[in-house]
Amino acid sequence: MRLFRRKIESDNSDTQRIEALSDGIFAIAITLLILEIHAPHLELSAPAHALRAALRDLWPAGFAYVFSFVTVGIYWANHHYVFKLYKRVNHAFILLNLFFLMCISFLPVPTEVLGDYLIDDNKRRIAVLFYNFALFLPAFAWSLSWIYASCRKGLLDPRLEPSFVATLTRQYILSDVLYLISIGLAAWNAWAGLALSVCLTFLYLLPPSAPRYRDDTSAGHAKSE
Amino acid sequence: MRLFRRKIESDNSDTQRIEALSDGIFAIAITLLILEIHAPHLELSAPAHALRAALRDLWPAGFAYVFSFVTVGIYWANHHYVFKLYKRVNHAFILLNLFFLMCISFLPVPTEVLGDYLIDDNKRRIAVLFYNFALFLPAFAWSLSWIYASCRKGLLDPRLEPSFVATLTRQYILSDVLYLISIGLAAWNAWAGLALSVCLTFLYLLPPSAPRYRDDTSAGHAKSE
Amino acid sequence: MRLFRRKIESDNSDTQRIEALSDGIFAIAITLLILEIHAPHLELSAPAHALRAALRDLWPAGFAYVFSFVTVGIYWANHHYVFKLYKRVNHAFILLNLFFLMCISFLPVPTEVLGDYLIDDNKRRIAVLFYNFALFLPAFAWSLSWIYASCRKGLLDPRLEPSFVATLTRQYILSDVLYLISIGLAAWNAWAGLALSVCLTFLYLLPPSAPRYRDDTSAGHAKSE
Amino acid sequence: MRLFRRKIESDNSDTQRIEALSDGIFAIAITLLILEIHAPHLELSAPAHALRAALRDLWPAGFAYVFSFVTVGIYWANHHYVFKLYKRVNHAFILLNLFFLMCISFLPVPTEVLGDYLIDDNKRRIAVLFYNFALFLPAFAWSLSWIYASCRKGLLDPRLEPSFVATLTRQYILSDVLYLISIGLAAWNAWAGLALSVCLTFLYLLPPSAPRYRDDTSAGHAKSE
Repeated sequence: MRLFRRKIESDNSDTQRIEALSDGIFAIAITLLILEIHAPHLELSAPAHALRAALRDLWPAGFAYVFSFVTVGIYWANHHYVFKLYKRVNHAFILLNLFFLMCISFLPVPTEVLGDYLIDDNKRRIAVLFYNFALFLPAFAWSLSWIYASCRKGLLDPRLEPSFVATLTRQYILSDVLYLISIGLAAWNAWAGLALSVCLTFLYLLPPSAPRYRDDTSAGHAKSE
Repeated sequence: MRLFRRKIESDNSDTQRIEALSDGIFAIAITLLILEIHAPHLELSAPAHALRAALRDLWPAGFAYVFSFVTVGIYWANHHYVFKLYKRVNHAFILLNLFFLMCISFLPVPTEVLGDYLIDDNKRRIAVLFYNFALFLPAFAWSLSWIYASCRKGLLDPRLEPSFVATLTRQYILSDVLYLISIGLAAWNAWAGLALSVCLTFLYLLPPSAPRYRDDTSAGHAKSE
Repeated sequence: MRLFRRKIESDNSDTQRIEALSDGIFAIAITLLILEIHAPHLELSAPAHALRAALRDLWPAGFAYVFSFVTVGIYWANHHYVFKLYKRVNHAFILLNLFFLMCISFLPVPTEVLGDYLIDDNKRRIAVLFYNFALFLPAFAWSLSWIYASCRKGLLDPRLEPSFVATLTRQYILSDVLYLISIGLAAWNAWAGLALSVCLTFLYLLPPSAPRYRDDTSAGHAKSE
Repeated sequence: MRLFRRKIESDNSDTQRIEALSDGIFAIAITLLILEIHAPHLELSAPAHALRAALRDLWPAGFAYVFSFVTVGIYWANHHYVFKLYKRVNHAFILLNLFFLMCISFLPVPTEVLGDYLIDDNKRRIAVLFYNFALFLPAFAWSLSWIYASCRKGLLDPRLEPSFVATLTRQYILSDVLYLISIGLAAWNAWAGLALSVCLTFLYLLPPSAPRYRDDTSAGHAKSE
């Protein structure tokens, strides 16, 4: 019994420490995005309107910053939401979560590329392609870790309704497909591809549905009787 | 009953995890400010007094660093103070808080601009305008999230005195107005605009007033009887 | 008795706060790796295929990013795993842990060097030598702090089986030796040296063996009777 | 009684949240130090020995990195040690702690200056002067916040022996004086000034003395009877 309790505790602290590392990486990745906006460095002799123009020209970098910030923020909120559904984590899940965090940490680079070339007619298409591909990566890693956790026994809270788990699985796979479509769309037209990925992000601003639990689970049944 | 407890716990951990992310972003945003001070890179042949002069010329960047650091630090202390007044958070509030954090994370860019052009007679006005606008943004996001929380039922601790809540609301709106005035002032005179925003920041160094609670709230009444 | 409890609590919070700082440094060091990938800055007149080529040429930097990210991630997981075996920490152990964290925080520099010169036939050998040496440093600091903790009375959980502790000690020393061999190998052939350090890292992706505890420890015995 | 408990809890969480922010800033400031070491960027045509020489020339930057890392690490350990002596914090103490953290976050700049000019005979003296002054700042902020806390009633644990508190006060003031002397020494001879500040740092690697508590405090007396 004592051994069992120690095991449970260690599992809880596992979930907590992986959440702590994830929160740390989310907080840093989201804050590092600002480093991609370069303050303009003008000569002392440059007139005031040159600085005004240079600050105005920061708007594509600003747009990329806001878009990536919102994306990472939504992933953080969803990470938060999904981790309440996990009972415990195992080694493979920790590695999948690290892969997801690696994709999140990569976002500053495509964000800077998008900010640099968004107003460049020649290179906009390549920049949006690269950015949408970089948005697909964490979405893919996310659905991978969710599917692993929902197939593997013992990771998800057993009291969750199977239909609720299936709904989330469908939703995450749909996101992957839509991000893939946004890449294809960007290959055809940059603005259309960007519009789709912006819309996808905005959709995730909607509140996630509340988790549904079975009315009488074995665990709950035993305790409530 | 069990379900209710689970609900409460999840709410508590909601507040805690959003505080943890916010603290992470505060800690990183405040520390990244230093990246805007560029150590001077001189030739090997440059004399000692050239380095002395270059270090002395860091003062505008140093001033901008100190000012922004104090501003972010005060927001952290106030965030801390206000979150003790919240009973729980919801999805919309989390998004408003993310918007606030996005404005905080943006501060390194205007800080660098202020540090670069503070001693540049041509461009000082534009730099202070940009900086004061960047100071208005988090103040605006802050009051927005406070007003949302105080209007929406169930977010604020119900034991708080309504007059105390109204005082904070007035204070936050007043700050927004004063930051707007500081932008207008900077459009007329850079130093005057900067002086106003510095004064505003210094005012917030004063300790916030202690929260006032109703003497007999329904919850407290029930328990103390 | 009260004093003893206070002592125990302070020890627990010691372990927790050192884990918190370590997690913070892990999270930041792993996220800062992305700063070593420089987004390409092309002229407005440069054609689209120039950006495509520049993004494609990021692959060595991308490989170095992924490799270092996985390495730091594995150290984080192992740090997590090993800290569950510690009962308490002392001042010397904290300093050894700081030395280990200093080696982890150093990784962005060799990662950038590896990414820059991996496809440079002249300088690849020096870059891999430097990188493998930088991989050896945290492995060495790691085994040093483990050996210190396992020799010093009172740091490790006394219920751990001595044979389990000896297995970990052997494993960590073996890693050090293999990293040293990878440096020697890189001095002879860059690709061979890199292959060995990549293989070493992949080996650590395997789940660590579960800690083995003695069946009847004095503490456990007393409590279970 | 209930109100009192809420007050105590809020005080505890005050200390905890300020420790969390401090730990975050420590973790980030210590990790950002690595950004001051610039990986060498050589032409493709540059021979292998040019990279070897460039990596060897990183040693002053490496020394400055190690020295600043150890300094920040020691401050972290001391912050940890001293916060166990605090019963609660107030607004002014939080501001003093922020001032201390601002000085810690500033260290990357003088670290880069030291690394850049340590081997430059012309400018070494100015660089060490600047660095030692930057080391004095957090030491000064540290002693300021300690003296404030020890004079103000209610912040320090009342069970601490007054002679123990006085010993720490003397030790912190002595550090300030020695750092001031190291600045004066650097004005005369760079190496001598650097040697003194290195020695000071090494002295702090020694374990701090255990806190001494009064044998019979009112609180302890009441409970143990």
